[in-house]
Amino acid sequence: MHSPVNMKIELINIGTELMAGHVLNTHHMWMAKTLFESGYRITRQICIDDEAKEVRKEVESAVSTADIVLTTGGLGPTSDDLTRETIAELLGKTLHRDETVMNRLRSFFESKRREIPTGVDVQADVPDGAEVIINYFGTAPGLILRFDRIDSATTGENRKGLLVMLPGPPRELRPMFKDQILPYMKQHSPLEKPLVCVILRTTGIGESIVESRLKEPLKECINDGLEIGFCAQPGMVDIRLQSQSGDAEQVVAMARKIVEDILSKYIYGVESDLLEERIIQDLTKTGKRVVTVESCTGGRISDRLTNIPGASAVVWGGFTTYSNESKSKCIGVNPQTLEQFGAVSSQTAAEMAEGALKQSGAEFALSVTGIAGPSGGSSEKPIGTVFIGIASKSLSTRVLHKINVFDRETFKTITSNQALDLLRKTIRKSNHEPSSG
Amino acid sequence: MHSPVNMKIELINIGTELMAGHVLNTHHMWMAKTLFESGYRITRQICIDDEAKEVRKEVESAVSTADIVLTTGGLGPTSDDLTRETIAELLGKTLHRDETVMNRLRSFFESKRREIPTGVDVQADVPDGAEVIINYFGTAPGLILRFDRIDSATTGENRKGLLVMLPGPPRELRPMFKDQILPYMKQHSPLEKPLVCVILRTTGIGESIVESRLKEPLKECINDGLEIGFCAQPGMVDIRLQSQSGDAEQVVAMARKIVEDILSKYIYGVESDLLEERIIQDLTKTGKRVVTVESCTGGRISDRLTNIPGASAVVWGGFTTYSNESKSKCIGVNPQTLEQFGAVSSQTAAEMAEGALKQSGAEFALSVTGIAGPSGGSSEKPIGTVFIGIASKSLSTRVLHKINVFDRETFKTITSNQALDLLRKTIRKSNHEPSSG
Repeated sequence: MHSPVNMKIELINIGTELMAGHVLNTHHMWMAKTLFESGYRITRQICIDDEAKEVRKEVESAVSTADIVLTTGGLGPTSDDLTRETIAELLGKTLHRDETVMNRLRSFFESKRREIPTGVDVQADVPDGAEVIINYFGTAPGLILRFDRIDSATTGENRKGLLVMLPGPPRELRPMFKDQILPYMKQHSPLEKPLVCVILRTTGIGESIVESRLKEPLKECINDGLEIGFCAQPGMVDIRLQSQSGDAEQVVAMARKIVEDILSKYIYGVESDLLEERIIQDLTKTGKRVVTVESCTGGRISDRLTNIPGASAVVWGGFTTYSNESKSKCIGVNPQTLEQFGAVSSQTAAEMAEGALKQSGAEFALSVTGIAGPSGGSSEKPIGTVFIGIASKSLSTRVLHKINVFDRETFKTITSNQALDLLRKTIRKSNHEPSSG
Repeated sequence: MHSPVNMKIELINIGTELMAGHVLNTHHMWMAKTLFESGYRITRQICIDDEAKEVRKEVESAVSTADIVLTTGGLGPTSDDLTRETIAELLGKTLHRDETVMNRLRSFFESKRREIPTGVDVQADVPDGAEVIINYFGTAPGLILRFDRIDSATTGENRKGLLVMLPGPPRELRPMFKDQILPYMKQHSPLEKPLVCVILRTTGIGESIVESRLKEPLKECINDGLEIGFCAQPGMVDIRLQSQSGDAEQVVAMARKIVEDILSKYIYGVESDLLEERIIQDLTKTGKRVVTVESCTGGRISDRLTNIPGASAVVWGGFTTYSNESKSKCIGVNPQTLEQFGAVSSQTAAEMAEGALKQSGAEFALSVTGIAGPSGGSSEKPIGTVFIGIASKSLSTRVLHKINVFDRETFKTITSNQALDLLRKTIRKSNHEPSSG
């Protein structure tokens, strides 16, 4: 799906640290996503060094074609912060000292019992006619300038462009953009038609199957103005349903219901929900706990679960049983099982889960054993072979068999996704069946 | 430090998934860093949708000013992969079917016992005069075209530019760029003066202290043409020593020796070495094993260690003892210790490490207990409080106390860095002292 409106939005990221490869440009993705979810779309992104000549050249080119120009970086107090001066000069604006910003600077440093350091006061210099956007998390304010579109002369239209300068640090930029700039854009550069958008997140089903299963059932919605997008990540597929039609709300709601009916088994969340987040929520609701036993994933599952605040109440603990010895010693896997079937086997996965369940106070035990590679495979059990076991107090033990042939990092990601999804489904199932205990 | 030579290198990232904010543009940082370490520098980066018109416009502008133009993405088999065709058309080249690429495609799908899917064969279409770069990790080859610099006509010089098309997936792009494109660039577009560069990686010491301790001792090297750069990541500082002077080799070697002498305790590796990689190497050399016991890091340390191939021989296993119950049950922490001193205490950290050492067959046991936040702190033990314990067969148990006040993710990263560094130092120390066992 391409730009929903004919609005050109250009993003110019300014910073030598970005160009030297010291820092990842997270601004682009974050702003693109934030805008996209409101129906706007960045049409071009550029990154350059913080040199006046480069900044001038790119901004000059951007204001000649774009409706909205966003810049990040170069608003600080040091000698390589040139964005403000360069843009003011380019648009023929004089800088004046803004007393509101100056007062904020004064009280900021007073609260730290420090004098305003030399040079910091340039952050109170504002181009004539600019709107000042307060920076609640730092010292450099954002600035908005309206500029005459170059095409105004030829078309006779009096179209104004919007030039927005944002500070570089993400913890300053993000709240400023979301809470102040985006509402400003919606007011001063509204979309012709607002966008309604919902994202449904799935796991355990491939992109092409998702696509083919939804194609027919969504036909009518598509005729009514629905747009569908798919985004595949290792082991997961996001489904984006959106519309800018007159009945956008209704069309998207209808499509969502259809997708949820067809793919209910695979949907674990909406928008930016994480699989592990959903599991911690489900466990918290029922007051049940989980224990993990990981071989080839080496702690990845436990790490992901404990990334979620609140995990400490529902994660009993975990074992990384990387050696045969630890499998037997920590959770009581029978050495004969290891001998007869191997450490990577359905039998071992089952005994790992059942052993951990017995050993712990948890209601669910999730186990993984497999061959991550790059070495260790055989013709019978090739690299990528994985067994995922789940034991619980109320349901019988299950083991999934998967072949995940990927590099080591992707292997861990996909295998932990599969394991977490099995855990999620088992928790749900156990809520609907009487306990056997 | 700015561009060491007057070579203009432009990077054009092509992909709708990048522009919609679905995917982070990691290409830019990775390629910038890789080039930077060889003395090259990306001077401008652009990201656009995979639309022919946009691609054409940006490539046309880039070849009119740059010496080297790199594109990523749009080389696949689907209808939105337009890079190859668009660039061929722009430079007036016809596409022909390349038999070598075609044969690679055939054997790729034969090995999977599949027919070549419809449309995939377009990846064997190569612009006349292009050099084909084999893709060892996927199907779309890289392509190199030489183009006439637009300034050739005016200056009379016969300068050729280099246009390189790279596939989008990082696991295909990275090895291709490092092993094939970079050597090609060095041969066909060499730097006026080659750069000698070494990166020393440190942990456990802050950036400003590193800087102040090296300032005086490196003065003479700096006079002889040494350049120093620092790059700080959570809990780590990289020191970059480089020179393009006549005696670059000697100057950098001398500086390296000085830095190694002063900071020997803190240096864990060179170039892109990982702390966990170094530990697996050190353990493998001595045939010793480690067991981990993690509370607040929740498996992160175990996950990082087992990311390294070969870990299975030296990682005995690990415990995520997230609950008090698991601390006592799995590794025998005395419930009275938990009662009296708390789960987050020096005493508990020591008992965790010693318990795991006893419980396992490992020579080293590393423990972590702390308060990650966002809740759980007290005035006595604020959020961020961490105790890291290490027990071993030959040295007495040690516990470090740290205060790491960060968001949950950074907390886990920094705390696991500190713990891994303590493990690294203890392994080294134990190699130099007689065993007490």
